[in-house]
Amino acid sequence: MKLVTAGVLLIGDELLTGRTQDTNLGDIARYLGPLGVQIGEARILPDDAKAISETVRDFSDKFDYVFTTGGIGPTHDDITADCIADAFGLGISERQDALDELLTRYELSDLNAARRRMARIPDGAGLIKNPVSLAPGFQTKNVFTLAGVPQIMRAMLDDIGHRIEGGAEVMQRTIPVESIGEGDIGGPLGELAEQHPDVSFGSYPFFKDEGGYGLRIVIRGIDESELEVAETSLKATLENLTG
Amino acid sequence: MKLVTAGVLLIGDELLTGRTQDTNLGDIARYLGPLGVQIGEARILPDDAKAISETVRDFSDKFDYVFTTGGIGPTHDDITADCIADAFGLGISERQDALDELLTRYELSDLNAARRRMARIPDGAGLIKNPVSLAPGFQTKNVFTLAGVPQIMRAMLDDIGHRIEGGAEVMQRTIPVESIGEGDIGGPLGELAEQHPDVSFGSYPFFKDEGGYGLRIVIRGIDESELEVAETSLKATLENLTG
Repeated sequence: MKLVTAGVLLIGDELLTGRTQDTNLGDIARYLGPLGVQIGEARILPDDAKAISETVRDFSDKFDYVFTTGGIGPTHDDITADCIADAFGLGISERQDALDELLTRYELSDLNAARRRMARIPDGAGLIKNPVSLAPGFQTKNVFTLAGVPQIMRAMLDDIGHRIEGGAEVMQRTIPVESIGEGDIGGPLGELAEQHPDVSFGSYPFFKDEGGYGLRIVIRGIDESELEVAETSLKATLENLTG
Repeated sequence: MKLVTAGVLLIGDELLTGRTQDTNLGDIARYLGPLGVQIGEARILPDDAKAISETVRDFSDKFDYVFTTGGIGPTHDDITADCIADAFGLGISERQDALDELLTRYELSDLNAARRRMARIPDGAGLIKNPVSLAPGFQTKNVFTLAGVPQIMRAMLDDIGHRIEGGAEVMQRTIPVESIGEGDIGGPLGELAEQHPDVSFGSYPFFKDEGGYGLRIVIRGIDESELEVAETSLKATLENLTG
């Protein structure tokens, strides 16, 4: 079964200044994993039209799916929709179906020019429902354009699953390691990785809240039985090292 | 005064699977801001040697400084040092100065092959002190290679400031907005942005913990007095809108 991949593009100056902590990448990853889609790369870009357009085009070619977050609100720095249109050489205009979505929340008289910006959608794009604040996201070819506000972004994901043809699901198992340092497990772990080429072995040290180091090994793979065998080998190796 | 820029490369499969939430980008941004260095782009890459090498080379040309985090530990998936060497066509070998750092923590007899990997440094690179776990980071040309564990990464930053020639500092002011929606401020904000071309105006809606929406306007610029004038205009505009 083939691997299906996605590229993620997180858009917004505020993500690069340290003002805002992105959490959308993790949410998208955890949503896509069970659908059988692996994220191959993520980029965080400022509100720079040229960089956004080029990256969208590049990612659209390189990955099965692309997700963008941010830049689809009502203000002058919300330029994502125009960048997507530009990336694919599409026209862009106010669309009645998008306006209709906004009209379920706003009176027509409240829809000023700024709010109407949120109904500008690239030609031919399909809308993505926004049950929170109603301004829709949209799908252009294999690119899903979502809001940047995490609560809205997560709600939009619910309207995406049915559009995705996933591949192999990468399963993972986490094995906590007690009283062995990463440097002690490093050599044996490299050998295990060679013996199990279809399973990836990751080693993740961390600081415990109560002080001292902790370590977790994460094994990942698409074949449940190979993963099982690898986990058994790993546990035997760990017992040898501690014992 | 010129703008000095940095590219940030966050390395590790775990950042793309939703297992680990990156916080290093924000820490680096908040460290560099006061030094007069702006982050122009960040990329999150899996443990893929080719992608890492190519991005390091590309970023090194494109930005004044480059920061990488992750992949310099003792296990087989720690490949960043080799990727940096490869990116610049440099040799790489175990270095005595790096080994000496490790020997302040470990007995020579504890330095197995895995731990000695952490003393492999690209030719000509300068070491970056790691006061936490002692395995050093390193500087190769304009590229700073740091640990992935946040506590260690932050400690390494302390040994970087003196190597950086910063430029203009981008200052920012945050103006909370009460009882005006983003759609109401959108139009006037675009006009303000046109009137103050050297100041950037960002608008950031969020959900309040107690329910309802909140909005903050962030203005940014390198000229304190222009920022002052822009803030005064913005506040007058907000007062007009609220009534």
